[in-house]
Amino acid sequence: MFDPVEKLKEFIRHASVSTDPKAKAGMQGAQEFVSGLLRSLGFAVDVVPTDLHPLIFAQRGGQPDWPHVVIYGHYDVQPADPLNLWKTPAFEPTLVGNRLYGRGAADNKGPLMTIIAAIARLLEEDPAVPLRLTFLIEGEEEIGSPSFPKFLERYADKLRAADCVFLSDTALPNEQQVVLTCGLRGLALFDVHVTGAKGDLHSGLHGGVLRNPIQALAEILATLHTPEGRVNVPGFYDTVLDVHPWERDELRKLGADEKAYADFLGIDTFYTTPGFTPFESLRFQPTLEFNGIGGGYQGEGTKTVIPSKAFAKISCRLVPNQEPDKIKRLVMDTIRARAPKGVKIDFVDQHKGEPYVVVPPDRSNTPANQPPVLARVFRATHEAVNEVWGRPPLYLREGGSVPIIAEIKRVTGLDSVMMGLFLPEDNLHAPNESFNLDVMRKGIETTYRMFKRLARG
Amino acid sequence: MFDPVEKLKEFIRHASVSTDPKAKAGMQGAQEFVSGLLRSLGFAVDVVPTDLHPLIFAQRGGQPDWPHVVIYGHYDVQPADPLNLWKTPAFEPTLVGNRLYGRGAADNKGPLMTIIAAIARLLEEDPAVPLRLTFLIEGEEEIGSPSFPKFLERYADKLRAADCVFLSDTALPNEQQVVLTCGLRGLALFDVHVTGAKGDLHSGLHGGVLRNPIQALAEILATLHTPEGRVNVPGFYDTVLDVHPWERDELRKLGADEKAYADFLGIDTFYTTPGFTPFESLRFQPTLEFNGIGGGYQGEGTKTVIPSKAFAKISCRLVPNQEPDKIKRLVMDTIRARAPKGVKIDFVDQHKGEPYVVVPPDRSNTPANQPPVLARVFRATHEAVNEVWGRPPLYLREGGSVPIIAEIKRVTGLDSVMMGLFLPEDNLHAPNESFNLDVMRKGIETTYRMFKRLARG
Repeated sequence: MFDPVEKLKEFIRHASVSTDPKAKAGMQGAQEFVSGLLRSLGFAVDVVPTDLHPLIFAQRGGQPDWPHVVIYGHYDVQPADPLNLWKTPAFEPTLVGNRLYGRGAADNKGPLMTIIAAIARLLEEDPAVPLRLTFLIEGEEEIGSPSFPKFLERYADKLRAADCVFLSDTALPNEQQVVLTCGLRGLALFDVHVTGAKGDLHSGLHGGVLRNPIQALAEILATLHTPEGRVNVPGFYDTVLDVHPWERDELRKLGADEKAYADFLGIDTFYTTPGFTPFESLRFQPTLEFNGIGGGYQGEGTKTVIPSKAFAKISCRLVPNQEPDKIKRLVMDTIRARAPKGVKIDFVDQHKGEPYVVVPPDRSNTPANQPPVLARVFRATHEAVNEVWGRPPLYLREGGSVPIIAEIKRVTGLDSVMMGLFLPEDNLHAPNESFNLDVMRKGIETTYRMFKRLARG
Repeated sequence: MFDPVEKLKEFIRHASVSTDPKAKAGMQGAQEFVSGLLRSLGFAVDVVPTDLHPLIFAQRGGQPDWPHVVIYGHYDVQPADPLNLWKTPAFEPTLVGNRLYGRGAADNKGPLMTIIAAIARLLEEDPAVPLRLTFLIEGEEEIGSPSFPKFLERYADKLRAADCVFLSDTALPNEQQVVLTCGLRGLALFDVHVTGAKGDLHSGLHGGVLRNPIQALAEILATLHTPEGRVNVPGFYDTVLDVHPWERDELRKLGADEKAYADFLGIDTFYTTPGFTPFESLRFQPTLEFNGIGGGYQGEGTKTVIPSKAFAKISCRLVPNQEPDKIKRLVMDTIRARAPKGVKIDFVDQHKGEPYVVVPPDRSNTPANQPPVLARVFRATHEAVNEVWGRPPLYLREGGSVPIIAEIKRVTGLDSVMMGLFLPEDNLHAPNESFNLDVMRKGIETTYRMFKRLARG
């Protein structure tokens, strides 16, 4: 008998911190644990080597007319630092009430184990269930999936044969309401460097004759938003898709409370794209943010220097159909055009990610040509959620980014059905991460029913 | 026989780095060396203890109608780091051509020894020379003279009995031209801190609803200058004294080359107060500079965070008659008034210094009530420079700040005659500091002749 909680505990004990070269044993342990588990369920497991951490590619074949679902997940976790803030050992799973504590409990070991447990139950009940299933479990999600694109290119043909992707690596707003995530923002990141004089200068001996690069940088950055809250870069919004009325309706059903959100953030005023509520702005609108700024003397006391250099780290969150490369070019061109005389502008390119959107079926403007199995997975998930949680899921775009979802779509054509299972209080990427075992139990039941419905046709 | 170069070598060997707690022996050695030297010249030396490094207060008394000149200098030096950039050992004085290398050679051990050597020669020739002299040599100049104000208050009565101050801790523009510094800029320094949300936020999950404090800071800083180069703070220039035409004339005689200066700085465009050349702007106009800025993630790569905080370090160089406290208040009030909604503004006050100006005699608008001895020291210095260097000195204000000069004026009423002796190529505060011994020789001759003239009446 498959005990999901015991399996999850075992999974958590492998300290699979992908960014830490000293965590090799934990990475290998977690990989072998998942591979072994899938093998024990009858999957043909292929451990795909990469330049860093191997991917697990595990298949259960079948008849060509059976639905073929790819299940995505990751076996790596964030570092547990700062360790002194953990109330229980980070890699010793600890049950407190209905919560299991440990690094990775919610991101992504718990949600992944939820799906595996549902599949285990399904196959135990009916070993001949008419479903083709492919697990795709990576070990580099927490470090930006550097090996994923190469893997995707190599396995593209095998993946194209599938119908869609199913995963759980997004959030629930609360314990009562399941969300199926229908969109993710993209990313465009780069640094801007401003150089003035060729070296740092004494602000007494040379102050008053040249433009300080911190001043120039501030003057440039200050032009990039309107006072009302739009990004002030010509062309920035040109390709942004209109939000469908059903999306706004769906968001309204969430019933989020602006006052409570402002209190949570600790602010007294929102600053959002005009025409959008804060919650709409988060999910439907692109942003241009300054993630960091630096220049000159930052220590205690004073140093009367005119620095030679200053820089800022810029990131844009993008929405469909903005293209990251085009947005980078627009913002860089704008910065160059607005730079005052007397300073030099340089850019350091960073990474990027395409935005993603999938329109669920049964929405007024669902494309008629949506692949039938994708539509069936959406419907089966909808019904299963409705039965298990007593209310239908909401279909919402999310403000965050999972760049591989758009990458899978770009390379293989496959869309993703994303069922959220972690809660805001689960402390992802923070000390005292935990997973709610009531949510896990309901998640297993939901996933089990979803696949059963899908198999039934 | 007093050998100034040998004495200077001995002085340099004491590694008197006032900021370095490990340099206690060097500090004490330098103090005892100077005290001993002055004692050997017949001065009554008082080593005045402070909370940190003692001051040397050394007096040669005389008749009440003899001129009484206070000679200021400092026996401490900057740290020698980075040591690996020194071509000769920093605290082992090394003669190369006509230059003596070593930390402190030019700042301030060489110029101070120049004055002491001139006094030694004077007293050797005429032990009864009718001059009262007070040396005031501190050990904390390189760390902002923290003990000086307390000392000044305690010794104010003794100092008020003097006629003026004479010192050499400013620059020569080149080996041919002596400058008597007639003004110094003041300083007003503080930090501004901007706070947005109560903690750092994920830029995906929360981007698009609040004003990033880096953005707010940039928007505030960008308002503080006009595109033309004036400080854009209401009232900032209200009390600035007009520049006398003779001051502009004097500066023109310096014949500085704008193209060469731009090349030295490595810039292609000056950005100065409208109506002033770069050289005038430096010496006659106030500034508002950003000495540092920081916020959010500044490391390699990216971190998609909306930081909770950002800050900037601001310093104003002030000219007569701007008051540091009033200017701080104006700038802080302006920042508060221009801060966008949704962020909190806090200030951390730093130090300040009054601007200083002294009008030499024989200028069209010299106040008629200038103390006669001050006027005589100016005239004597003028004549001595003219004889020894073959051309008269220039009377120029300087862009830098020596806050104790204004502080001495404020507390004791004494003005200062500042004769520059270090050259731009002397590498003050940098590796391979040196002092030009030809300048030293001419400086001794000049100072000797100045005091001799002064004594003659």
